[in-house]
Amino acid sequence: MRTRNVKNKEEILKSSSLVIDDPCCFKGKWCDVFGNANPIYLEIGSGKCKFIYENALKYPDINFIGVEKVDSILSIGVKNINYLPNLRLINYDALLLNDVFFREVSRLFLNFSDPWPKKRHIKRRLTNDRFLKVYDNIFVDSCEIFMKTDNMELFRYSICSLSMYGYRIRNLSFDLQSEGKNDNIMTEYERKFTEKGCKIFFLEAIK
Amino acid sequence: MRTRNVKNKEEILKSSSLVIDDPCCFKGKWCDVFGNANPIYLEIGSGKCKFIYENALKYPDINFIGVEKVDSILSIGVKNINYLPNLRLINYDALLLNDVFFREVSRLFLNFSDPWPKKRHIKRRLTNDRFLKVYDNIFVDSCEIFMKTDNMELFRYSICSLSMYGYRIRNLSFDLQSEGKNDNIMTEYERKFTEKGCKIFFLEAIK
Repeated sequence: MRTRNVKNKEEILKSSSLVIDDPCCFKGKWCDVFGNANPIYLEIGSGKCKFIYENALKYPDINFIGVEKVDSILSIGVKNINYLPNLRLINYDALLLNDVFFREVSRLFLNFSDPWPKKRHIKRRLTNDRFLKVYDNIFVDSCEIFMKTDNMELFRYSICSLSMYGYRIRNLSFDLQSEGKNDNIMTEYERKFTEKGCKIFFLEAIK
Repeated sequence: MRTRNVKNKEEILKSSSLVIDDPCCFKGKWCDVFGNANPIYLEIGSGKCKFIYENALKYPDINFIGVEKVDSILSIGVKNINYLPNLRLINYDALLLNDVFFREVSRLFLNFSDPWPKKRHIKRRLTNDRFLKVYDNIFVDSCEIFMKTDNMELFRYSICSLSMYGYRIRNLSFDLQSEGKNDNIMTEYERKFTEKGCKIFFLEAIK
């Protein structure tokens, strides 16, 4: 996601009670952060946090953590949402998440991830083996990945990559909106693309 | 496939040296039919046999068997192709293939299978569990299914069904023609649909 630089981003992130400053401290004990043992759902690439915030509002018995690498984007998100006891945000690189979580995440959301269309950048896709290996150690027992994208090539690649890695594709849609699911929470991108008439691809993978 | 009734279909099938009259006799010993131990590739729903015939022409070191349930269609196909030593055809129901093969097929082609769009007919789809169970016992060791279709719902269903059954999706295309594969042999349907501008879906699944 290209975005403008936010000048006081550090300040915004530091002063927010939603943002966990040093998430490595809580590796293996995120239940202490939330004060309960409810399941933890993670979103990688939370952007402006609309999706993860609305999920946290809707499902108070689930704990949600949004991961966003770009501090400027996260700081914009933080300004637009209110505190919720079952929501935390971290400014972190997905490839380093084994520093932050150990067998405590129940579901992973990958929403409109960067498609990295060039061949030499395939390793940067969030469904590349490099990342799948990282996810292995953050999941509590079974692994569950929910993915949405408007990019057909990323979707095609992800089905094969997840499948060859050992995930099973439990559910799949080539046009999520047409299914009229009432419980679908849209991301910022999703709303924009849907309004333009783009089709949204969706999958649920389990291992 | 809807087709006209061919009046002398029995006669055509009986007199063809390509058609195996009582295929159950060769269960577990199809190598005897071909006189060699080359790999056997099977197509279920061979229709007018263009695909399986062109494959047999192109790959003389592979043995090909075409399975077609509808005798009228098979008889039309038989009339249009020549004898090849590495090709045989059988008029049989896919659900009963365990009567015909035992651990001797290396690859299965499912081309433009009937999509059975109604919910109550899902069990008739060739990638439904009922059929996948049958295929388990016909494959020699590893299972390899190559599928082509123009039907998005059948494709979506098949990815999930194969994946949940234990197959891995090794390769996938949402637009086979656009990839410009030189080695793609078209079926009758495929040529018709491609000329109309329809996109062809393709997958390779292994287990």
